[in-house]
Amino acid sequence: MAKPERDLTEKTLASHIRFQGRLLVVTEDEVELADGRRSTREYIRHPGAVVVVAEDDDGAVILERQWRHPLGAAMIELPAGKIDSGEEPLACARRELQEETGYAASQWRELATLHPCVGYSDERLILFLAQGLTQTGARPDDGEHLEVFALPLTEAVTWVEEGRITDAKSVVGLLWTDRLRRGDWPAVPEG
Amino acid sequence: MAKPERDLTEKTLASHIRFQGRLLVVTEDEVELADGRRSTREYIRHPGAVVVVAEDDDGAVILERQWRHPLGAAMIELPAGKIDSGEEPLACARRELQEETGYAASQWRELATLHPCVGYSDERLILFLAQGLTQTGARPDDGEHLEVFALPLTEAVTWVEEGRITDAKSVVGLLWTDRLRRGDWPAVPEG
Repeated sequence: MAKPERDLTEKTLASHIRFQGRLLVVTEDEVELADGRRSTREYIRHPGAVVVVAEDDDGAVILERQWRHPLGAAMIELPAGKIDSGEEPLACARRELQEETGYAASQWRELATLHPCVGYSDERLILFLAQGLTQTGARPDDGEHLEVFALPLTEAVTWVEEGRITDAKSVVGLLWTDRLRRGDWPAVPEG
Repeated sequence: MAKPERDLTEKTLASHIRFQGRLLVVTEDEVELADGRRSTREYIRHPGAVVVVAEDDDGAVILERQWRHPLGAAMIELPAGKIDSGEEPLACARRELQEETGYAASQWRELATLHPCVGYSDERLILFLAQGLTQTGARPDDGEHLEVFALPLTEAVTWVEEGRITDAKSVVGLLWTDRLRRGDWPAVPEG
Protein backbone atom coordinates (compact mmCIF):
# COMPACT_ATOMS: atom_id res chain seq x y z
CA MET A 1 0.00 0.00 0.00
CA ALA A 2 1.60 3.21 -1.17
CA LYS A 3 1.02 6.54 0.54
CA PRO A 4 -1.69 8.63 -1.07
CA GLU A 5 -0.96 10.26 -4.39
CA ARG A 6 -3.71 9.46 -6.90
CA ASP A 7 -5.76 12.28 -8.44
CA LEU A 8 -9.27 11.82 -7.04
CA THR A 9 -10.61 15.22 -8.05
CA GLU A 10 -14.28 15.52 -8.99
CA LYS A 11 -15.21 18.38 -11.29
CA THR A 12 -18.43 20.28 -10.58
CA LEU A 13 -20.48 20.60 -13.76
CA ALA A 14 -23.58 22.27 -12.29
CA SER A 15 -24.92 23.21 -8.88
CA HIS A 16 -28.56 23.49 -7.78
CA ILE A 17 -30.21 24.46 -4.50
CA ARG A 18 -32.77 21.70 -3.89
CA PHE A 19 -34.12 22.88 -0.54
CA GLN A 20 -33.93 26.13 1.37
CA GLY A 21 -35.28 25.82 4.91
CA ARG A 22 -35.18 28.10 7.91
CA LEU A 23 -31.80 26.67 8.87
CA LEU A 24 -30.66 24.16 6.25
CA VAL A 25 -29.73 24.58 2.60
CA VAL A 26 -29.49 21.39 0.54
CA THR A 27 -27.41 21.61 -2.62
CA GLU A 28 -27.19 19.03 -5.39
CA ASP A 29 -24.20 19.19 -7.69
CA GLU A 30 -23.61 17.29 -10.90
CA VAL A 31 -20.02 16.09 -10.95
CA GLU A 32 -17.58 14.36 -13.25
CA LEU A 33 -15.63 11.70 -11.38
CA ALA A 34 -11.91 11.13 -11.75
CA ASP A 35 -12.62 8.28 -14.21
CA GLY A 36 -14.83 10.50 -16.41
CA ARG A 37 -18.19 9.10 -15.27
CA ARG A 38 -20.90 11.44 -14.02
CA SER A 39 -22.73 11.41 -10.72
CA THR A 40 -24.59 13.72 -8.33
CA ARG A 41 -23.59 14.92 -4.88
CA GLU A 42 -26.16 16.14 -2.36
CA TYR A 43 -25.02 18.03 0.72
CA ILE A 44 -25.76 20.72 3.28
CA ARG A 45 -24.27 24.19 2.92
CA HIS A 46 -23.08 25.48 6.27
CA PRO A 47 -21.54 28.88 7.15
CA GLY A 48 -18.86 27.32 9.37
CA ALA A 49 -18.64 27.36 13.16
CA VAL A 50 -16.32 27.69 16.12
CA VAL A 51 -15.86 25.62 19.26
CA VAL A 52 -14.10 26.95 22.36
CA VAL A 53 -12.19 25.21 25.14
CA ALA A 54 -12.40 27.91 27.83
CA GLU A 55 -10.05 26.93 30.64
CA ASP A 56 -10.04 28.79 33.94
CA ASP A 57 -7.03 29.43 36.17
CA ASP A 58 -7.77 26.25 38.17
CA GLY A 59 -7.66 23.98 35.10
CA ALA A 60 -11.43 23.63 34.81
CA VAL A 61 -13.19 23.93 31.46
CA ILE A 62 -16.53 25.62 30.82
CA LEU A 63 -19.21 23.23 29.61
CA GLU A 64 -22.81 23.66 28.56
CA ARG A 65 -25.75 21.34 28.80
CA GLN A 66 -28.48 21.98 26.29
CA TRP A 67 -31.32 20.17 24.63
CA ARG A 68 -30.55 18.88 21.16
CA HIS A 69 -33.82 18.16 19.49
CA PRO A 70 -32.45 15.96 16.65
CA LEU A 71 -31.18 13.55 19.29
CA GLY A 72 -34.06 14.01 21.73
CA ALA A 73 -31.58 14.51 24.57
CA ALA A 74 -29.70 17.09 26.61
CA MET A 75 -26.07 17.04 25.46
CA ILE A 76 -22.98 18.25 27.27
CA GLU A 77 -20.85 20.34 24.95
CA LEU A 78 -18.15 22.95 24.74
CA PRO A 79 -19.39 26.45 23.86
CA ALA A 80 -19.81 26.70 20.10
CA GLY A 81 -21.72 28.55 17.45
CA LYS A 82 -22.13 29.41 13.81
CA ILE A 83 -20.05 32.08 12.14
CA ASP A 84 -22.05 35.11 11.01
CA SER A 85 -21.66 36.31 7.44
CA GLY A 86 -18.34 38.15 7.12
CA GLU A 87 -17.32 37.42 10.70
CA GLU A 88 -13.77 36.33 11.54
CA PRO A 89 -13.61 32.97 13.35
CA LEU A 90 -11.85 34.49 16.39
CA ALA A 91 -14.44 37.27 16.64
CA CYS A 92 -17.13 34.61 16.47
CA ALA A 93 -15.44 32.59 19.21
CA ARG A 94 -15.26 35.66 21.50
CA ARG A 95 -18.91 36.46 20.79
CA GLU A 96 -20.22 32.93 21.33
CA LEU A 97 -18.26 32.46 24.55
CA GLN A 98 -19.61 35.76 25.85
CA GLU A 99 -23.20 35.18 24.73
CA GLU A 100 -23.49 31.59 25.90
CA THR A 101 -21.45 31.62 29.10
CA GLY A 102 -20.82 35.25 30.04
CA TYR A 103 -17.04 34.76 29.98
CA ALA A 104 -14.47 36.95 28.32
CA ALA A 105 -10.94 35.59 27.79
CA SER A 106 -7.66 37.51 27.58
CA GLN A 107 -5.69 34.77 25.78
CA TRP A 108 -6.79 32.98 22.62
CA ARG A 109 -5.08 30.27 20.58
CA GLU A 110 -6.37 28.56 17.46
CA LEU A 111 -5.79 24.84 17.95
CA ALA A 112 -7.27 23.06 14.95
CA THR A 113 -9.64 22.93 12.01
CA LEU A 114 -12.17 20.10 11.96
CA HIS A 115 -14.69 18.82 9.45
CA PRO A 116 -17.54 17.20 11.41
CA CYS A 117 -19.65 15.75 8.56
CA VAL A 118 -17.51 15.22 5.45
CA GLY A 119 -20.09 13.01 3.74
CA TYR A 120 -22.98 15.43 3.59
CA SER A 121 -21.99 18.90 4.83
CA ASP A 122 -19.37 21.49 3.97
CA GLU A 123 -19.17 22.57 7.63
CA ARG A 124 -15.76 23.64 8.87
CA LEU A 125 -15.19 24.02 12.62
CA ILE A 126 -12.36 26.07 14.10
CA LEU A 127 -11.26 24.96 17.57
CA PHE A 128 -9.97 27.62 19.96
CA LEU A 129 -8.38 27.52 23.41
CA ALA A 130 -9.37 30.49 25.60
CA GLN A 131 -7.63 31.35 28.87
CA GLY A 132 -7.51 34.26 31.28
CA LEU A 133 -11.25 34.08 31.89
CA THR A 134 -13.35 36.86 33.42
CA GLN A 135 -17.03 36.40 34.19
CA THR A 136 -18.97 39.36 32.82
CA GLY A 137 -22.53 38.05 33.23
CA ALA A 138 -24.20 35.64 30.82
CA ARG A 139 -26.35 36.97 28.02
CA PRO A 140 -27.84 33.89 26.43
CA ASP A 141 -29.48 34.34 23.03
CA ASP A 142 -33.23 34.56 23.20
CA GLY A 143 -34.58 31.04 23.09
CA GLU A 144 -31.31 29.38 24.08
CA HIS A 145 -31.95 27.23 27.07
CA LEU A 146 -28.74 26.01 28.50
CA GLU A 147 -26.93 25.32 31.72
CA VAL A 148 -23.33 26.46 32.08
CA PHE A 149 -20.89 24.81 34.47
CA ALA A 150 -17.17 24.34 35.05
CA LEU A 151 -15.52 20.93 35.33
CA PRO A 152 -11.85 20.03 35.86
CA LEU A 153 -10.33 19.07 32.49
CA THR A 154 -9.28 15.67 33.85
CA GLU A 155 -12.85 14.97 34.93
CA ALA A 156 -14.22 16.12 31.57
CA VAL A 157 -11.87 13.64 29.85
CA THR A 158 -13.25 10.92 32.15
CA TRP A 159 -16.76 11.93 31.05
CA VAL A 160 -15.60 11.40 27.44
CA GLU A 161 -14.22 7.96 28.34
CA GLU A 162 -17.45 7.05 30.12
CA GLY A 163 -19.63 8.17 27.24
CA ARG A 164 -21.26 11.07 29.12
CA ILE A 165 -19.84 13.47 26.52
CA THR A 166 -20.39 12.17 22.96
CA ASP A 167 -20.62 15.39 20.94
CA ALA A 168 -17.74 14.93 18.49
CA LYS A 169 -16.49 18.54 18.48
CA SER A 170 -16.40 18.54 22.29
CA VAL A 171 -14.64 15.17 22.42
CA VAL A 172 -11.94 16.48 20.08
CA GLY A 173 -11.58 19.76 21.99
CA LEU A 174 -11.18 18.02 25.34
CA LEU A 175 -8.77 15.31 24.13
CA TRP A 176 -6.74 17.89 22.20
CA THR A 177 -6.41 20.19 25.23
CA ASP A 178 -5.55 17.23 27.46
CA ARG A 179 -2.69 16.29 25.09
CA LEU A 180 -1.40 19.87 25.27
CA ARG A 181 -1.56 19.81 29.08
CA ARG A 182 0.34 16.50 29.24
CA GLY A 183 2.98 17.82 26.86
CA ASP A 184 2.20 15.06 24.34
CA TRP A 185 2.03 17.74 21.72
CA PRO A 186 4.15 20.87 21.83
CA ALA A 187 2.21 23.96 22.76
CA VAL A 188 1.01 25.80 19.69
CA PRO A 189 2.25 29.36 19.17
CA GLU A 190 0.26 32.13 20.81
CA GLY A 191 -2.39 33.41 18.41
CA MET B 1 -22.12 27.14 38.69
CA ALA B 2 -23.90 23.95 39.72
CA LYS B 3 -23.52 20.69 37.87
CA PRO B 4 -26.27 20.05 35.33
CA GLU B 5 -29.69 19.17 36.62
CA ARG B 6 -32.34 21.39 35.04
CA ASP B 7 -35.11 19.89 32.90
CA LEU B 8 -34.43 21.12 29.36
CA THR B 9 -36.75 18.69 27.58
CA GLU B 10 -38.49 19.86 24.41
CA LYS B 11 -41.73 18.11 23.54
CA THR B 12 -42.40 17.27 19.89
CA LEU B 13 -45.88 18.43 18.88
CA ALA B 14 -45.72 17.56 15.18
CA SER B 15 -43.16 16.30 12.67
CA HIS B 16 -43.02 16.93 8.92
CA ILE B 17 -40.67 15.79 6.19
CA ARG B 18 -39.73 18.98 4.33
CA PHE B 19 -37.31 17.51 1.79
CA GLN B 20 -36.56 14.01 0.59
CA GLY B 21 -33.52 13.87 -1.64
CA ARG B 22 -31.47 11.02 -3.03
CA LEU B 23 -29.40 10.97 0.16
CA LEU B 24 -30.76 13.54 2.61
CA VAL B 25 -34.06 13.76 4.44
CA VAL B 26 -34.86 17.10 6.07
CA THR B 27 -37.41 17.01 8.90
CA GLU B 28 -39.06 19.98 10.58
CA ASP B 29 -40.61 19.42 13.98
CA GLU B 30 -42.84 21.76 15.96
CA VAL B 31 -41.72 21.71 19.57
CA GLU B 32 -42.75 23.05 22.94
CA LEU B 33 -39.76 24.38 24.83
CA ALA B 34 -39.11 23.75 28.52
CA ASP B 35 -40.60 27.19 29.31
CA GLY B 36 -43.81 26.42 27.38
CA ARG B 37 -43.04 28.53 24.32
CA ARG B 38 -43.22 27.00 20.84
CA SER B 39 -40.55 26.78 18.19
CA THR B 40 -39.51 24.70 15.18
CA ARG B 41 -36.49 22.43 14.77
CA GLU B 42 -35.12 21.52 11.34
CA TYR B 43 -32.66 18.66 10.98
CA ILE B 44 -31.34 15.82 8.87
CA ARG B 45 -32.48 12.26 9.49
CA HIS B 46 -29.56 9.86 9.26
CA PRO B 47 -29.52 6.06 9.55
CA GLY B 48 -26.39 6.02 11.75
CA ALA B 49 -22.87 5.01 10.80
CA VAL B 50 -19.76 3.22 11.97
CA VAL B 51 -16.09 4.18 11.97
CA VAL B 52 -13.29 1.63 12.33
CA VAL B 53 -9.76 1.91 13.68
CA ALA B 54 -8.21 -1.16 12.02
CA GLU B 55 -4.80 -1.73 13.58
CA ASP B 56 -2.38 -4.27 12.15
CA ASP B 57 0.13 -6.37 14.10
CA ASP B 58 2.85 -3.74 13.58
CA GLY B 59 0.78 -0.93 15.19
CA ALA B 60 -0.19 0.70 11.88
CA VAL B 61 -3.74 1.83 11.20
CA ILE B 62 -5.58 1.50 7.89
CA LEU B 63 -6.48 4.88 6.38
CA GLU B 64 -8.36 5.92 3.27
CA ARG B 65 -8.02 8.92 1.07
CA GLN B 66 -11.11 9.88 -0.85
CA TRP B 67 -12.66 12.86 -2.53
CA ARG B 68 -15.28 14.64 -0.44
CA HIS B 69 -17.27 16.78 -2.78
CA PRO B 70 -18.89 19.03 -0.12
CA LEU B 71 -15.38 20.17 0.84
CA GLY B 72 -13.90 20.08 -2.66
CA ALA B 73 -10.92 18.13 -1.35
CA ALA B 74 -9.48 14.66 -0.88
CA MET B 75 -9.74 13.79 2.82
CA ILE B 76 -7.81 11.24 4.83
CA GLU B 77 -10.18 9.20 6.99
CA LEU B 78 -10.66 6.00 8.89
CA PRO B 79 -12.87 3.44 7.13
CA ALA B 80 -16.52 4.26 7.81
CA GLY B 81 -19.96 3.86 6.39
CA LYS B 82 -23.68 4.11 6.89
CA ILE B 83 -25.65 1.39 8.64
CA ASP B 84 -28.11 -0.44 6.38
CA SER B 85 -31.70 -0.77 7.52
CA GLY B 86 -31.89 -3.44 10.22
CA GLU B 87 -28.13 -3.98 10.27
CA GLU B 88 -26.24 -4.37 13.57
CA PRO B 89 -23.44 -1.81 13.99
CA LEU B 90 -20.77 -4.51 14.33
CA ALA B 91 -22.00 -6.27 11.17
CA CYS B 92 -21.86 -2.91 9.40
CA ALA B 93 -18.31 -2.32 10.65
CA ARG B 94 -17.16 -5.74 9.37
CA ARG B 95 -18.85 -5.11 6.03
CA GLU B 96 -17.49 -1.59 5.53
CA LEU B 97 -13.94 -2.59 6.48
CA GLN B 98 -14.11 -5.50 4.03
CA GLU B 99 -15.74 -3.52 1.22
CA GLU B 100 -13.55 -0.45 1.48
CA THR B 101 -10.17 -1.91 2.40
CA GLY B 102 -10.35 -5.67 1.77
CA TYR B 103 -9.43 -6.43 5.40
CA ALA B 104 -11.13 -8.87 7.73
CA ALA B 105 -10.41 -8.65 11.48
CA SER B 106 -10.56 -11.41 14.08
CA GLN B 107 -10.92 -9.10 17.13
CA TRP B 108 -13.45 -6.34 17.48
CA ARG B 109 -14.10 -3.91 20.35
CA GLU B 110 -16.70 -1.15 20.52
CA LEU B 111 -14.92 1.93 21.83
CA ALA B 112 -17.42 4.78 21.82
CA THR B 113 -20.58 6.40 20.54
CA LEU B 114 -20.24 9.82 18.93
CA HIS B 115 -22.68 12.43 17.68
CA PRO B 116 -20.95 14.35 14.87
CA CYS B 117 -23.54 17.06 14.13
CA VAL B 118 -25.78 17.61 17.18
CA GLY B 119 -27.18 20.89 15.86
CA TYR B 120 -28.74 19.64 12.64
CA SER B 121 -28.51 15.86 12.33
CA ASP B 122 -29.59 12.85 14.36
CA GLU B 123 -26.52 10.92 13.18
CA ARG B 124 -25.00 8.52 15.69
CA LEU B 125 -21.56 7.06 14.97
CA ILE B 126 -20.27 3.89 16.63
CA LEU B 127 -16.46 3.70 16.87
CA PHE B 128 -14.84 0.25 16.69
CA LEU B 129 -11.29 -1.03 17.14
CA ALA B 130 -10.46 -3.97 14.85
CA GLN B 131 -7.35 -6.12 15.25
CA GLY B 132 -6.04 -9.41 13.92
CA LEU B 133 -6.22 -8.18 10.33
CA THR B 134 -6.15 -10.42 7.26
CA GLN B 135 -6.09 -8.99 3.74
CA THR B 136 -8.73 -10.72 1.64
CA GLY B 137 -8.70 -8.47 -1.43
CA ALA B 138 -10.48 -5.13 -1.63
CA ARG B 139 -13.95 -4.96 -3.13
CA PRO B 140 -14.73 -1.25 -3.26
CA ASP B 141 -18.36 -0.30 -3.84
CA ASP B 142 -19.09 0.69 -7.40
CA GLY B 143 -18.34 4.39 -7.73
CA GLU B 144 -16.20 4.59 -4.61
CA HIS B 145 -12.88 6.04 -5.57
CA LEU B 146 -10.47 5.74 -2.74
CA GLU B 147 -6.88 4.97 -1.89
CA VAL B 148 -6.15 2.67 1.04
CA PHE B 149 -2.89 2.78 2.97
CA ALA B 150 -1.40 1.85 6.34
CA LEU B 151 0.33 4.37 8.62
CA PRO B 152 1.88 3.86 12.07
CA LEU B 153 -0.58 5.08 14.73
CA THR B 154 1.99 7.50 16.13
CA GLU B 155 2.46 9.03 12.68
CA ALA B 156 -1.30 9.25 12.15
CA VAL B 157 -1.57 11.18 15.44
CA THR B 158 1.12 13.54 14.16
CA TRP B 159 -0.96 14.02 11.00
CA VAL B 160 -3.85 15.04 13.29
CA GLU B 161 -1.63 17.49 15.13
CA GLU B 162 -0.36 18.94 11.86
CA GLY B 163 -3.84 19.34 10.43
CA ARG B 164 -3.41 16.77 7.64
CA ILE B 165 -6.29 14.76 9.14
CA THR B 166 -9.25 17.00 10.02
CA ASP B 167 -12.23 14.66 9.63
CA ALA B 168 -13.71 14.72 13.13
CA LYS B 169 -14.63 11.02 13.39
CA SER B 170 -11.11 10.06 12.31
CA VAL B 171 -9.51 12.52 14.74
CA VAL B 172 -11.52 11.02 17.61
CA GLY B 173 -10.77 7.43 16.55
CA LEU B 174 -7.02 8.07 16.35
CA LEU B 175 -6.75 10.06 19.60
CA TRP B 176 -8.93 7.51 21.41
CA THR B 177 -6.82 4.56 20.23
CA ASP B 178 -3.63 6.41 21.09
CA ARG B 179 -4.90 6.92 24.67
CA LEU B 180 -5.63 3.20 24.93
CA ARG B 181 -2.13 2.36 23.65
CA ARG B 182 -0.51 4.71 26.17
CA GLY B 183 -2.58 3.24 28.99
CA ASP B 184 -4.15 6.63 29.70
CA TRP B 185 -7.48 4.86 29.66
CA PRO B 186 -7.95 1.31 30.82
CA ALA B 187 -8.54 -1.10 27.95
CA VAL B 188 -12.22 -1.65 27.36
CA PRO B 189 -13.58 -5.18 27.75
CA GLU B 190 -13.49 -7.41 24.68
CA GLY B 191 -16.70 -7.02 22.67
